This record gives sequence, C-alpha cells and structure tokens, in this order.
Amino acid sequence: MRSEIISYEADGLAMESHLYVDEGRSGARPGVLVFPEAFGLGDHAKNKARKLAELGYVALACDLHGEGRIKTDRDEMMAELGALFEAPERIRARAKGGLDALLARPEADPARIASIGFCFGGTMSLELARGGHPIAGVVGFHSGLKTSRPQDAANIKGRVLVLIGADDPGIPPEQRAAFEAEMRAGKVDWQMKLYGGVVHSFTNPEADAMGMPDFVRYDAVADRRSWAEMLAFFDEIFGKAG
Amino acid sequence: MRSEIISYEADGLAMESHLYVDEGRSGARPGVLVFPEAFGLGDHAKNKARKLAELGYVALACDLHGEGRIKTDRDEMMAELGALFEAPERIRARAKGGLDALLARPEADPARIASIGFCFGGTMSLELARGGHPIAGVVGFHSGLKTSRPQDAANIKGRVLVLIGADDPGIPPEQRAAFEAEMRAGKVDWQMKLYGGVVHSFTNPEADAMGMPDFVRYDAVADRRSWAEMLAFFDEIFGKAG
Repeated sequence: MRSEIISYEADGLAMESHLYVDEGRSGARPGVLVFPEAFGLGDHAKNKARKLAELGYVALACDLHGEGRIKTDRDEMMAELGALFEAPERIRARAKGGLDALLARPEADPARIASIGFCFGGTMSLELARGGHPIAGVVGFHSGLKTSRPQDAANIKGRVLVLIGADDPGIPPEQRAAFEAEMRAGKVDWQMKLYGGVVHSFTNPEADAMGMPDFVRYDAVADRRSWAEMLAFFDEIFGKAG
Repeated sequence: MRSEIISYEADGLAMESHLYVDEGRSGARPGVLVFPEAFGLGDHAKNKARKLAELGYVALACDLHGEGRIKTDRDEMMAELGALFEAPERIRARAKGGLDALLARPEADPARIASIGFCFGGTMSLELARGGHPIAGVVGFHSGLKTSRPQDAANIKGRVLVLIGADDPGIPPEQRAAFEAEMRAGKVDWQMKLYGGVVHSFTNPEADAMGMPDFVRYDAVADRRSWAEMLAFFDEIFGKAG
C-alpha cells in the first residue's frame, strides 16, 4: 500500500490530501474522493481511504481546512461551516480541487469516479455533484443534507446514496424532507437509508470521546451496514472493483 | 427444484400455500415466508419464493385470501383490507399459519426464519413480528407500514428492513413518519430504504398492466437494488445461506 501527500490549491487554501493506492495492482481503476468530518482530515477519513485502496480503488482522503489543519475549537468550526453554507461555491471549489487532483493520477479511471464523505464531508460530496462535475456516484455518511442552492440538484450527473441515522439531531426529519423534495425536483437517481436508533458520526469510533452520546455516537452495526451498502453501490456504478 | 402445495387453516380460511425447496441440498436451512400483494398469491410472490429456493433457502409463498384466491375486484379487496386493518389479530393469524407450516418442515431451521412481503404482504410480515413470533428478520417491499396497534412494536424480536418508493402515494411521508415513531418507541432494530422516483409495486413486472403509472409501476433498478438489499440483510441475520 502506497500513500503520498498530494498538494493543490483550492478556495485559496493550500490543501494537503492523502492518496492511497495498492501498488500490487496495475492499470486505471475506479477512484474515490473521501471527504472528512467537519473537524478536518484526520485518521477516520484516512483509514476509510486506505480500506478502499485495499479493495482495489484509488482513494484520495481530502483536506478540508488547508494545510491539513484539524479544528478543535468547536465554536470556530461552527462559524466557519456557517459561512461556507452561505457560499456553496466555496465548498464546491474545495471539493473540486480534490477531484482535479485525483483525475490527474494515472491510476484513476476518469470515467469511474465517486465521492464519499462523512458529516460535512458528505455535504462536500453533494455540493460537488450539485456543481455539475462528472462523478458517477455520491455517498454521504451521516451527511449534512441541506444546501443554500437546492435548485442546483438539476445539475447532478451521478447517482446519490445517503446513509443517515434516523435519530441524528443534526439531520432532523425536516432536513431529510427538504432533501427529498430537492432530489425529486432535480430528477436525481437518489436513495436514502435510515438506520433506527442511530445518531450522528456513527462511522467514527472516536465519536464517543466527545461525550455527547445523544448527538454523536459510534455504532458498529450501522458502520458495517453502511460500508457494505456503499460497496454494493460502487459495484452497481462501477462494476466490480479492481 | 421441488414445489408442493401446503394446506393449513388460518383465520377460518383454508390456506393453500406453495413451498419451494432445492432438493439438491440437504439439511436444515434458513426459511423464508413470502407474503403476496393484496390481490392474493399469484406468480409474483411464487417467483420470488422460487428464486429464494434456488439460492438455498426454503421458501413458503403464502396464501392470503384462502383457497388460493386472487381477488380481481378492487372495491371488494379494499373493503376486505380495511376490515383486516381494524383487526390486526386476523392478519397475524393468517401469517402465523404460514409460519407454523414452515416450522413444521424438516428443511427449515427454526432458529433462522425470516418473513418478507410485498404491499399488504409486507404488512402481514410486520404484523407477524408485532405479534411477538420468533422470526429473525422482516423485510417489507413497498410495504404498508400502518397498523392499528403500534404499541405492539415492543414485541418485535427480529430485525426490520423496509424498502419503499419515495414517491409511493400509498405510503406517504406521514405514514413513514408514524412508522419511524413506532419503531423508535418499540426499540426495534429497524432500517428504511427510500428509492427516489419510485412508486408502489416496483418489484412487480405486472404492475404496469394496471395502467396507473403514477401509483403502481414496475422499476427494474429498484427491483434489483431492493432484492440485493434483502439478500445482504439475510447474510447478516443468517450468515451466508446454505
């Protein structure tokens, strides 16, 4: 397994993303962008990218805040996210930087690119698709579904799968309903899976350390189910990997 | 592939169900009850049961109206369904008859029984579970989710997966929301998959003959996705089928 840091500029930031590729395989293969939770690019998203590479994908775990920063101040982070939600072109620019970097790699088959993300990273994946960029599929895990430009769903070229904890206080039923309406109006091929008894950050074993179990909590069953669901979705859109 | 008619009495009706089992396999294997759409036991549910038997399950395609009747008069059928919804113990009795018949078969492993259903057959599967009967998993395809005894969700012993067209006029968002609340209150292990752009009866190729495409319409993609989702769910609850 080879990993290397890929640097590029996006939204005025010096991004430092991490590419994972299995050197034991040759030729162009499906590529997957992996966007992290709102804190920034940490082990969680890197581990997911590494697992994808082991399965035969080329995976780019993408920087979010520039220079690989992890934001630990929750208030500062929420303020920044609020600003980004008002300016989706900036979210899209950050995601597009990762897409261009992945497309520049000979290991990546440009006709077979997907984008996945966790929490705000799911929002980044969805905004990339709303920007009309050529990605075959989008997967959002406990993904923020709201957007300030719902009309741009009409630009979405690929298929969409969102995997949501039914009890996630950050993605309440009204937000899901608005997303449904957006996808319907945009005539998107979309699917939503709801996991009962599951809240935010269910894929992240480090979530429990936040000490807010009613809001963020790791769920091993939902983590496994949602990962399998993503792989089945990839099989559908790419054919079998590797 | 062997198929045979299994007769039993349930809710005062002489049921004629169809068992499918692959004689090329030996020993007890996971068993699946297959409940049909509201019209009664026709080719659609029988074909699904046959496919399950080919995959290594023992499958019982269950009669609904007694004597294998198919109800073609829509008004008569709707009146009967209305009466049944008011008396869930009668729905449960019809489903329980199938469960007992399947459990009596040496090919069926009593610790590994699931129940699936389509439309009203999904309701039957869910009511069987609400009755507290020992089934490991319930799958409902375009399944009616409403019940007159939501408090009985607390009796559900197995896991629940419902697969719903997001645009199904027969299963509107309010019905989905009530089901969520019911499952949450009952502390059920539940999942719901929504398919965008999909309406009722999406698994049934004969749906289009009804000439009501805004209400019932076959959808080959959703049919394939939901079937694969069910098989992954079975792998989870049973281990790989035998």
